Amino acid sequence: MVLDGDVAHVGLTTGLEGVRLAARALPGHDLDTVDLSVRAFGTTLGAPVLISCMTGGTGDAGPVNAALAAAAQHHRVALGLGSGRVLLQGGDPASFEVRDIAPDVPLLANLGAVQLAEVGLDGCHELVERTRADALVLHLNAVQEAVQPEGDTGFGDVLGRIADVVAGLGVPVVAKEVGFGMAADDVRALVDTGVAAIDVAGAGGTNWARVEGHRDTDAGAIAAAFVDWGWSTHDSLVAAMGVLGDAPADRRPLLIASGGLAHGVDAVKCLCLGADLVGFGRRLIAAGAEGPERATSALGTLVQQMRIAVWGIGATRPSDLGTAHLA
Amino acid sequence: MVLDGDVAHVGLTTGLEGVRLAARALPGHDLDTVDLSVRAFGTTLGAPVLISCMTGGTGDAGPVNAALAAAAQHHRVALGLGSGRVLLQGGDPASFEVRDIAPDVPLLANLGAVQLAEVGLDGCHELVERTRADALVLHLNAVQEAVQPEGDTGFGDVLGRIADVVAGLGVPVVAKEVGFGMAADDVRALVDTGVAAIDVAGAGGTNWARVEGHRDTDAGAIAAAFVDWGWSTHDSLVAAMGVLGDAPADRRPLLIASGGLAHGVDAVKCLCLGADLVGFGRRLIAAGAEGPERATSALGTLVQQMRIAVWGIGATRPSDLGTAHLA
Amino acid sequence: MVLDGDVAHVGLTTGLEGVRLAARALPGHDLDTVDLSVRAFGTTLGAPVLISCMTGGTGDAGPVNAALAAAAQHHRVALGLGSGRVLLQGGDPASFEVRDIAPDVPLLANLGAVQLAEVGLDGCHELVERTRADALVLHLNAVQEAVQPEGDTGFGDVLGRIADVVAGLGVPVVAKEVGFGMAADDVRALVDTGVAAIDVAGAGGTNWARVEGHRDTDAGAIAAAFVDWGWSTHDSLVAAMGVLGDAPADRRPLLIASGGLAHGVDAVKCLCLGADLVGFGRRLIAAGAEGPERATSALGTLVQQMRIAVWGIGATRPSDLGTAHLA
Amino acid sequence: MVLDGDVAHVGLTTGLEGVRLAARALPGHDLDTVDLSVRAFGTTLGAPVLISCMTGGTGDAGPVNAALAAAAQHHRVALGLGSGRVLLQGGDPASFEVRDIAPDVPLLANLGAVQLAEVGLDGCHELVERTRADALVLHLNAVQEAVQPEGDTGFGDVLGRIADVVAGLGVPVVAKEVGFGMAADDVRALVDTGVAAIDVAGAGGTNWARVEGHRDTDAGAIAAAFVDWGWSTHDSLVAAMGVLGDAPADRRPLLIASGGLAHGVDAVKCLCLGADLVGFGRRLIAAGAEGPERATSALGTLVQQMRIAVWGIGATRPSDLGTAHLA
Ligand SMILES: Cc1cc2nc3c(=O)[nH]c(=O)nc-3n(C[C@H](O)[C@H](O)[C@H](O)COP(=O)(O)O)c2cc1C
Ligand SMILES: Cc1cc2nc3c(=O)[nH]c(=O)nc-3n(C[C@H](O)[C@H](O)[C@H](O)COP(=O)(O)O)c2cc1C
Ligand SMILES: Cc1cc2nc3c(=O)[nH]c(=O)nc-3n(C[C@H](O)[C@H](O)[C@H](O)COP(=O)(O)O)c2cc1C
Ligand SMILES: Cc1cc2nc3c(=O)[nH]c(=O)nc-3n(C[C@H](O)[C@H](O)[C@H](O)COP(=O)(O)O)c2cc1C
Repeated sequence: MVLDGDVAHVGLTTGLEGVRLAARALPGHDLDTVDLSVRAFGTTLGAPVLISCMTGGTGDAGPVNAALAAAAQHHRVALGLGSGRVLLQGGDPASFEVRDIAPDVPLLANLGAVQLAEVGLDGCHELVERTRADALVLHLNAVQEAVQPEGDTGFGDVLGRIADVVAGLGVPVVAKEVGFGMAADDVRALVDTGVAAIDVAGAGGTNWARVEGHRDTDAGAIAAAFVDWGWSTHDSLVAAMGVLGDAPADRRPLLIASGGLAHGVDAVKCLCLGADLVGFGRRLIAAGAEGPERATSALGTLVQQMRIAVWGIGATRPSDLGTAHLA
Repeated sequence: MVLDGDVAHVGLTTGLEGVRLAARALPGHDLDTVDLSVRAFGTTLGAPVLISCMTGGTGDAGPVNAALAAAAQHHRVALGLGSGRVLLQGGDPASFEVRDIAPDVPLLANLGAVQLAEVGLDGCHELVERTRADALVLHLNAVQEAVQPEGDTGFGDVLGRIADVVAGLGVPVVAKEVGFGMAADDVRALVDTGVAAIDVAGAGGTNWARVEGHRDTDAGAIAAAFVDWGWSTHDSLVAAMGVLGDAPADRRPLLIASGGLAHGVDAVKCLCLGADLVGFGRRLIAAGAEGPERATSALGTLVQQMRIAVWGIGATRPSDLGTAHLA
Repeated sequence: MVLDGDVAHVGLTTGLEGVRLAARALPGHDLDTVDLSVRAFGTTLGAPVLISCMTGGTGDAGPVNAALAAAAQHHRVALGLGSGRVLLQGGDPASFEVRDIAPDVPLLANLGAVQLAEVGLDGCHELVERTRADALVLHLNAVQEAVQPEGDTGFGDVLGRIADVVAGLGVPVVAKEVGFGMAADDVRALVDTGVAAIDVAGAGGTNWARVEGHRDTDAGAIAAAFVDWGWSTHDSLVAAMGVLGDAPADRRPLLIASGGLAHGVDAVKCLCLGADLVGFGRRLIAAGAEGPERATSALGTLVQQMRIAVWGIGATRPSDLGTAHLA
Repeated sequence: MVLDGDVAHVGLTTGLEGVRLAARALPGHDLDTVDLSVRAFGTTLGAPVLISCMTGGTGDAGPVNAALAAAAQHHRVALGLGSGRVLLQGGDPASFEVRDIAPDVPLLANLGAVQLAEVGLDGCHELVERTRADALVLHLNAVQEAVQPEGDTGFGDVLGRIADVVAGLGVPVVAKEVGFGMAADDVRALVDTGVAAIDVAGAGGTNWARVEGHRDTDAGAIAAAFVDWGWSTHDSLVAAMGVLGDAPADRRPLLIASGGLAHGVDAVKCLCLGADLVGFGRRLIAAGAEGPERATSALGTLVQQMRIAVWGIGATRPSDLGTAHLA
């Protein structure tokens, strides 16, 4: 699990530090009136938040996932699971069994898009059924694969395979990067596949080339050139809005902003820039490892920060937010 | 009292370091001819300076306030008192009794605007009478209240209540923030209430979310997202001038610049940007704690720096100053 | 040999850190389809790479050159030799004898352009013959010579002499700086001499004034003013493209980018900016000193980084690359 | 003497680090052909250099001045003396007696312009005669005087008194600041007095408010506000050129650039920006204290750096230089 070690981007930040919220000395209403709830994945969330897909398959992943599930259920936010590849390959399913802990929130299963060649639509069906997930997240991780000695770099047919899953799976499909962000052309191509949501997973948080570099010497040497690879979360978001901006909100995929979000103020900045949901990943891992109470409290802090920030710029609801709230 | 500890904004400065005075090798007149006196609150000040509202109610606040009062009297500058809430709640009045030490300068009582719901116009009357103040300062501190476990965040009716106090109190009312600054819309709304002066109290000095964060663990976790919240003193001032700029000086509220001013050169920069008065807060607390002599000397240094800076850009009086004196 | 010591530019970088590749979450094809091969110096290289002219003439230069030659041969990239002046002056030829180790790649001999006054066209012929080189590199190092106590600063006739060598030598001639880069006017003048390739050898890597400064106290004092002399690799490249840009690629000299390139991503940035080949110098010296295996592996890492970067921006071949691939 | 201690500007540099010379890989001529000589103060200098007015009156000033005089004589550059006020007040004249050591170069006596009220034209005559100087430098040091407890801040009539000295003295008069630079209006006013030369003495080197601050506690407290006061050498120079630029070179005062110049490359940047001469001050003090040989060698290094820089941008003479040589 990536809790420690030097795995951050170097010389590249989320870009959100350069975005400033237009604070108000006079919010104009009581903090109590703020309502962060939103509709997503066919249900109502307590806040426009997703716990990003992270861990699964190993022994210690179980308790972490259980803790994050308890937090998600408590605050009514969406919950992503780590890659289910090991599950499909016969690994221990225990760490993925969180549906009973988080019965009322959207649960998202996860798989590498490049592995669709291997597992096919059948594998997707199996994964969604066994995890009792509400949706499937397919992640794009080209550079992460490329720096690995045995990485799977057959990305030639990935787009077509994503479109097939969208057409055949029967639950919403989400496409995401893993921390290098997306170009406008990537977003455009994903929209055409019909995915229900796009998570830019921008740069500024975890750098997956560096993570692989810690696992293997050769990968480490190669990864050294990619410490500032990719698009920042801010730039990815702006690029995505350039593509999605014109489409009516109900006729385009949900836009999810993740990648290095440090707190609720970063989250509100992303909402102002156009995101529908925000994802927190590594920020929650340490609390998750300490158990359900700490995870629930850590997630509660993030949501409370979002609530205060929304109020502090004079807004009441996520749907109020826009670039007019930026300084 | 906030003398130590890490309570400053992070990654956010007053913005005054980016403002440069247009120094002159040839000031054109003798330093002796510089005259910093201005009219404010119905009297003549020796310099356009206010000691910002800071402390009161506790035992050690008494000597500090007495020392600052002696300094204010000596240099003929306005003096703000800390929040009088404790006084109205039956607390020890001793630390607020400085009128006899500073009989000839404007004395400003202070209260949280959000607490008007609780104390009403009667409480304001009582506070002004008991402190023998010349004016009442109402502070706006939304984010400071919001990060506190039991904070008062009922800001919905604040504007109306300020207007009521302005209409009914009989002494001038000042509105200020506490270190997060103001947006142009805030200034506009405050002008409409009829306040006699607006103190932007911008960001770059003390960060009150961080202060509260040191008092409580949960508040600290929440406050971590607000370390760079708000508008810098510079940006607040520019925004305020955008609103006030056109109105004739005698038909608009006085504009007070405070928030992180480090010395007299910062003060003169604010005057050039359009402020009528400048406020020094935390900068004077340490000297205040050392007694009247050190407080008088520290304030004297600030005033002398202002005098030299006014001269060093070829000006004579505060009324000479404007953006033409900026490089 | 310049392996250690403080010999880098101060306050001046390659400028490539400010150039960003337009990363793609969806490369659009398999990594296996990437083909870095290019034609240069009458042959096909495995990648558009040159090992920059570095060392020769001393005892320990022999093994380093042999190791770099093995690496060049393995990866099929061009190989530059260090200055052959000592060879022409009767020095030990052993360290220059690498032709047998690298029989299938372009081998480039090297000489200071200012020394043409001394060695003449005959010396050039002799050097090319004795090293069995495919081309001759003439380096321009005005400031390096100037800071030396006995430096050769007779640059008045250098251009004419280069033109004479181009006309008379019978193998391609390359002109390069040694790490201070080139102005557009320099590139223009060199094009007029008819050279086959221009290597901008820009600033941001080794600073040769500082190298000389470590050899001599007076030179060191003088060199202190030149720690940020010259044009960055980025600026040199942009200037060169301003001159060469319009000419059809087969009717203009090859453009080589070198000077402080740290890895394959820097290299691909240079290709996108218009370079035909990239040169790695000091980056490879340490590995070269450790023998042929380490040198081959280090060069392999650089080439693999280039391959992943080309793929990661959705391209397949060097000829695909252009400023459209920059963010 | 100000050799050590923290007396530099804080957060303010000369601005010359942002000016870049347009280096040439091909200078186009031999270094030997570079000729730095210029006409100034009625004689021919070996290089367009002035050793800035620094020290005098104290015991240890004598050897330093003698060493600097020997260096000036050797390299044929102009030599400024420290303030002659002590001399006129009956102090020991020994440290000012350098005429015999530097018989062939312009020797410049020095006095505070504000002290003209005290010493009058007669004092100027006496100072020039006793030092056998070729010119008189009058320095403007308003802020330096203002931070001192007993400083002379009667700058009201300074301009008129300078004009009187220009009219009556019979030798050229130079006006300079002492390290806070000049505004365009200052330059304009000085031109009107008829001075023969203006030395901007800009900020980025020694900060004289800080120097005074080290001498006195109160001055130190006041000086803290002035650590970044003034105009950088670059900005002063650009402002002066805005005023002088149009006038023909022989019908306007010489423009001298000084203030924090670190080496000959800085000097050549100033010449390209329009200066006729450059001044080195504190940069030479340490070598001066080590005796005539070290002083001569240190000055020689500066001149050689200038020579190489002029050559390295493809120029031959100071009169060639202009903004076309900037990158
Ligand atoms: C420990 C860890 C494991 C992760 N595993 C996955 C994964 O299995 N599948 C996936 O799509 N993303 C994975 N990610 C990426 C995250 O979902 C997210 O996109 C990325 O970390 C950026 O968000 P963050 O900076 O908030 O962590 C993982 C991230 C972390 C930190
Ligand atoms: C110790 C301390 C106590 C303060 N108490 C109050 C207060 O009671 N009421 C108020 O309006 N502002 C209060 N403030 C805020 C100041 O009035 C001022 O707006 C703010 O500190 C910014 O100015 P400064 O950076 O110069 O301190 C306090 C500030 C400090 C440092
Ligand atoms: C140890 C060393 C020796 C060099 N010797 C030569 C040389 O003999 N001839 C030459 O043209 N350049 C020489 N160079 C300069 C390089 O060819 C190259 O232009 C420069 O170092 C910039 O590239 P780099 O930053 O990748 O090293 C030398 C560089 C190094 C580091
Ligand atoms: C030790 C010292 C003494 C100085 N004394 C004088 C002086 O007596 N008169 C004067 O006009 N300037 C004086 N100066 C200012 C210099 O002439 C010069 O304007 C200033 O130091 C900026 O140049 P620099 O940064 O190269 O030292 C002095 C500077 C130094 C460092």
